[in-house]
Amino acid sequence: MEIQIAVAKVNKYAVSESGDTLEVVERPNGGLSVVLADGQTSGPGAKAVSLMVVRKVIGLLAEGVRDGAAARAASDALFTEKKGKVSCTLNIVSVDLHSGTIVLTRNNPAPIIVGQEGVINCLQAESSPLGVSRSVRPAISEIVVQTGLTIVVYTDGLVHAGKRRGAPMDVCTAMEAMLEEQEPSPQEIADSLLSHAIRLDEGRPGDDISVVVLRVHPRQGDNFRRMTVRLPISVA
Amino acid sequence: MEIQIAVAKVNKYAVSESGDTLEVVERPNGGLSVVLADGQTSGPGAKAVSLMVVRKVIGLLAEGVRDGAAARAASDALFTEKKGKVSCTLNIVSVDLHSGTIVLTRNNPAPIIVGQEGVINCLQAESSPLGVSRSVRPAISEIVVQTGLTIVVYTDGLVHAGKRRGAPMDVCTAMEAMLEEQEPSPQEIADSLLSHAIRLDEGRPGDDISVVVLRVHPRQGDNFRRMTVRLPISVA
Repeated sequence: MEIQIAVAKVNKYAVSESGDTLEVVERPNGGLSVVLADGQTSGPGAKAVSLMVVRKVIGLLAEGVRDGAAARAASDALFTEKKGKVSCTLNIVSVDLHSGTIVLTRNNPAPIIVGQEGVINCLQAESSPLGVSRSVRPAISEIVVQTGLTIVVYTDGLVHAGKRRGAPMDVCTAMEAMLEEQEPSPQEIADSLLSHAIRLDEGRPGDDISVVVLRVHPRQGDNFRRMTVRLPISVA
Repeated sequence: MEIQIAVAKVNKYAVSESGDTLEVVERPNGGLSVVLADGQTSGPGAKAVSLMVVRKVIGLLAEGVRDGAAARAASDALFTEKKGKVSCTLNIVSVDLHSGTIVLTRNNPAPIIVGQEGVINCLQAESSPLGVSRSVRPAISEIVVQTGLTIVVYTDGLVHAGKRRGAPMDVCTAMEAMLEEQEPSPQEIADSLLSHAIRLDEGRPGDDISVVVLRVHPRQGDNFRRMTVRLPISVA
């Protein structure tokens, strides 16, 4: 088997810095974790908060701390630093090669979509962002790695897309339509969801949006690990 | 413009864990850094060393420490912990949007290849790995971001490929041949160099090999940031 992960990210219209931070890091016992945080509001202040939360989480994961404990620790640190006045959503998607599972940690009102054998589930149990109280708990799900598994995680920019015009995005329905097509790649899914949201916002995203898509495929070809990054820049 | 980065990695033959660690992280003032370390020997011991070095470096970069200072600090930390008995190579490739430059930091005898306007340069001034003495200094180069710029960084597995058979790999010549072709993507370059090395090692890589390729292209299409990861796994 092979795991493919794709990320697509865009900034709020006319804001140069995204309040979303995303890092992919190796886990000390094998596998990797995608850590995605969205700081309250947008611009540099939000960036500083989401960067702080992501650094805290990846530092703890690197020491072997479990995902849920890392999320709680980041929440407590944010609560202490900002006195409960600033929140930050957090999602951790971990490929744990030791247990052969994907572990989903969510402190985010936005749901996580899990597609498996033609069925799409939205994990949307209530879940609060980090930093709002001393008793924040993550919602944690563990799913066995098997071919065809699709997981979609996103920040609330996707949920709010189109709301200004009264035509909000229905992410689950969009996903169902997409998975009926012939085996879209994770990048195609991520790009398609993001493009859909931007169309609903009439080309001017009302918030930073990040979409992460993980799919488990049968092994195709060699045994190389690969990573690609594309960074549009506006240097003169 | 847009910056595209591709990574291809493979483990030493019959070793389940790579001694190479690579992380891509956002820089606090914009842009990103690719941090690649190769711990001495191979297997879990080497992994622990390269992971420690990479964590140290990305922690410092996150605080705004300059790349060269982060490399020196990681070297001193490794020297102190291992009493000078364990070395680790380090390369940092930073896209600094503030200065509009790529900053290359190298503590690695393996050269860095820089292709610009049809000319290929190998940066191969002497450079020692981290952890071997108290006076380790990185070799630092700064290159203005411009369309067509190509940078290739790799661990010594690529340099040693084919040596067992007395037919070592000439990375510079391989790159020249490749850049004469029509605009290969960074992933094509990385895959091609890695495949070439594995052929020279008769399908059984004698060491962990990691190749990082960065290219600056004219802007193509949208302004999404993208990332993809492919992780081959052998879960039952």
